Amino acid sequence: MKAEIVAIGSELTDGAKLDTNSQWLSQQLTDLGIAVHFHTTVADNLDENVAVLKLAVERADVVLITGGLGPTLDDLTREAMAALREVPLEFDEPSLAAITEMFLSRGREMPERNRVQAMFPLGSTPLPNPVGTAPGIWMTIPRGTARPPAIVAAMPGVPSEMHRMFDEQVRPRLPVSPQAIVRARLNCFGLGESHTEQLLGDLTARGRNPEIGITAHEATITLRITAHGFSMGECDEMVGVARETIVQRLGAYVYGSEDEELEDIVVRRLIDSGQTLATVESGTGGLLSQRITNVRDFERCYLGGLILPSETAQRRELGLAPDLFSQGGAISEAVAREMAICCRARLGADYAVAITNDRGMEFGADLSLPAAIVAVAAPDQVHVLPVQRIGNRAIHRSRTVKSALNLLRLHLVEPQ
Amino acid sequence: MKAEIVAIGSELTDGAKLDTNSQWLSQQLTDLGIAVHFHTTVADNLDENVAVLKLAVERADVVLITGGLGPTLDDLTREAMAALREVPLEFDEPSLAAITEMFLSRGREMPERNRVQAMFPLGSTPLPNPVGTAPGIWMTIPRGTARPPAIVAAMPGVPSEMHRMFDEQVRPRLPVSPQAIVRARLNCFGLGESHTEQLLGDLTARGRNPEIGITAHEATITLRITAHGFSMGECDEMVGVARETIVQRLGAYVYGSEDEELEDIVVRRLIDSGQTLATVESGTGGLLSQRITNVRDFERCYLGGLILPSETAQRRELGLAPDLFSQGGAISEAVAREMAICCRARLGADYAVAITNDRGMEFGADLSLPAAIVAVAAPDQVHVLPVQRIGNRAIHRSRTVKSALNLLRLHLVEPQ
Repeated sequence: MKAEIVAIGSELTDGAKLDTNSQWLSQQLTDLGIAVHFHTTVADNLDENVAVLKLAVERADVVLITGGLGPTLDDLTREAMAALREVPLEFDEPSLAAITEMFLSRGREMPERNRVQAMFPLGSTPLPNPVGTAPGIWMTIPRGTARPPAIVAAMPGVPSEMHRMFDEQVRPRLPVSPQAIVRARLNCFGLGESHTEQLLGDLTARGRNPEIGITAHEATITLRITAHGFSMGECDEMVGVARETIVQRLGAYVYGSEDEELEDIVVRRLIDSGQTLATVESGTGGLLSQRITNVRDFERCYLGGLILPSETAQRRELGLAPDLFSQGGAISEAVAREMAICCRARLGADYAVAITNDRGMEFGADLSLPAAIVAVAAPDQVHVLPVQRIGNRAIHRSRTVKSALNLLRLHLVEPQ
Repeated sequence: MKAEIVAIGSELTDGAKLDTNSQWLSQQLTDLGIAVHFHTTVADNLDENVAVLKLAVERADVVLITGGLGPTLDDLTREAMAALREVPLEFDEPSLAAITEMFLSRGREMPERNRVQAMFPLGSTPLPNPVGTAPGIWMTIPRGTARPPAIVAAMPGVPSEMHRMFDEQVRPRLPVSPQAIVRARLNCFGLGESHTEQLLGDLTARGRNPEIGITAHEATITLRITAHGFSMGECDEMVGVARETIVQRLGAYVYGSEDEELEDIVVRRLIDSGQTLATVESGTGGLLSQRITNVRDFERCYLGGLILPSETAQRRELGLAPDLFSQGGAISEAVAREMAICCRARLGADYAVAITNDRGMEFGADLSLPAAIVAVAAPDQVHVLPVQRIGNRAIHRSRTVKSALNLLRLHLVEPQ
């Protein structure tokens, strides 16, 4: 079974907006075992919309459309679907009632032009939208006797409305693959992509079941495990064995699963042990604090952070001795170590993470030297780690912060 | 003249990667006056690639391709273009020399498989890639006597390589519209989208020249001015008049132009006047520092920042009196004011910006109350502003930080 995703809107083809819906829907369909072969984006033009949909039902069995369901003259998806099926649009009373109700709940009367959102191609099924005014449309298109009808579902372009409609209305209606599929992700930090591949060896061979894919994003390595089988139980077991084998081979490089970030693990560990954390940053300008304060319940362990861009500020706020800088400048192991120790004392925390100034953030930096140094002060010892610059400034910043979080994580997991 | 953008790669159709190239290229073509009608994304499958390209040269005059130029078996763009033109692939010596040189400059020998990147459809033009191994391909496809040949250009999928190749190799080869077009952007903060539209009145009417479009992103309003004329001079003049009219109507809500952010303006103003800034954040957890430290030369004015998530930390680090909190909790004008004043004194800065705790960051928050309070302490006065929550947590955080930066900007522009 092949699928095509169609995104409708001139704001997409002229570059004013980025389409993220097609990626999201591709992930959902891939997870259901339905292979997406095409994405098409088309401007608000009725003839072109109809031509695109005709081609889509020819070359794909499932066609998911986003956008073009609003109340204005530019919104042509309803008409295009009616033209595709060669039927008129008809009025749906329950949908009109729902739209009217949606406006009332926001304290407004329904504008006359929104009535058109209750029009549907004859024979199609309206898909309720509990969080917006545009209902979706579900219909099938006959393709002669030799092929099953194509499935066409249209959803709103607003991502939050589309996600909910897909989950509640579209996914349950899609034909289920007779095969069971289970997917899992393991996240690793501290290893390069090719080194990971080498350690995993035969596990990543193509065509293996479960299949294990490697993707890298800002130095986080994600292993995607996909098991195919006749039952969910069989798949779960295969995934379990694969996870164990991976953890055996990669050890503490594996830090979490699914959407977990390093900061999630660190915050959870600290809360569980009733310990506290403080941070001091120079070259990363608050990114470490940002990551920590985005974790739910962070306030139960995070006492606070200092952002000290200059040597002067570091000396003044942390009381670092001037001769500390005279030896190796603002980027040395000695400075990182003292920053962490003084920050820990100053904020009265069990642990402190420090990130020094960052040579890698300068424009035209000498990339052969360590760009920044990160340090972790624990109650009875200090860990220090230099970070090389790889990639552009934004990636380097993110990687430096992750290296600091990982240094703390490794200490919390297995104190040495 | 119509254009189509084609993105090639199974990592796009299966949702593993987000395609941002098509949006970027659409913006470039729209700026050149070439209307993009379609984006197509297709998996790594030769027959489907050829079919997609055949359709593209039928329905569009300019076809820009990204991806599929790598050295592996999955990379099919070369072959698909040769099949489209019905010609064989031939070897290009200069391209091979460039690829070999690229590897040498990275201290590596060229792997044998990369030789294929020097193969081109007969009669096509190789496009040099100064920052990667994959050269691009430029060719034209005849479409009978009634229509001009279609232009097809293939570029690498890596965005940085693609951007450079488009700028240096593709853009100069594209047919130029006989009309001149000049575009400009003005950025505003502090006004809603509909209020802005109201103040601009007739200026935003459709079909007007210059045309003025309004887009909103996390409470920043961007006005896009597009002037069409017979000469650049004529267009520049129209844009100049439009800018003046807009500034007359919106006043200090207009803060900058093109890519300028509020923090760019604030940092520049402070550096120009030789003044300094410190920050203290609670609910925004370092986002304000992040924005400031992303501006070039920020270290010339930014003395540092404190992130103090809890009342305890605020009292301890800033010496705020306990009874300050007993009156209105951690989110009150009095707390914001004292945070700013104490931070200014503590870091010895000319200005301090403070952001209190944030009710809007809590899950299930009461959104009828101001979510956070921001304050600016200047040498002789303090400004305070409550921020309501609108939108999700991430948007709210961004909006709160922007409101704080804007409060400082307004003081720097016109101290009261």
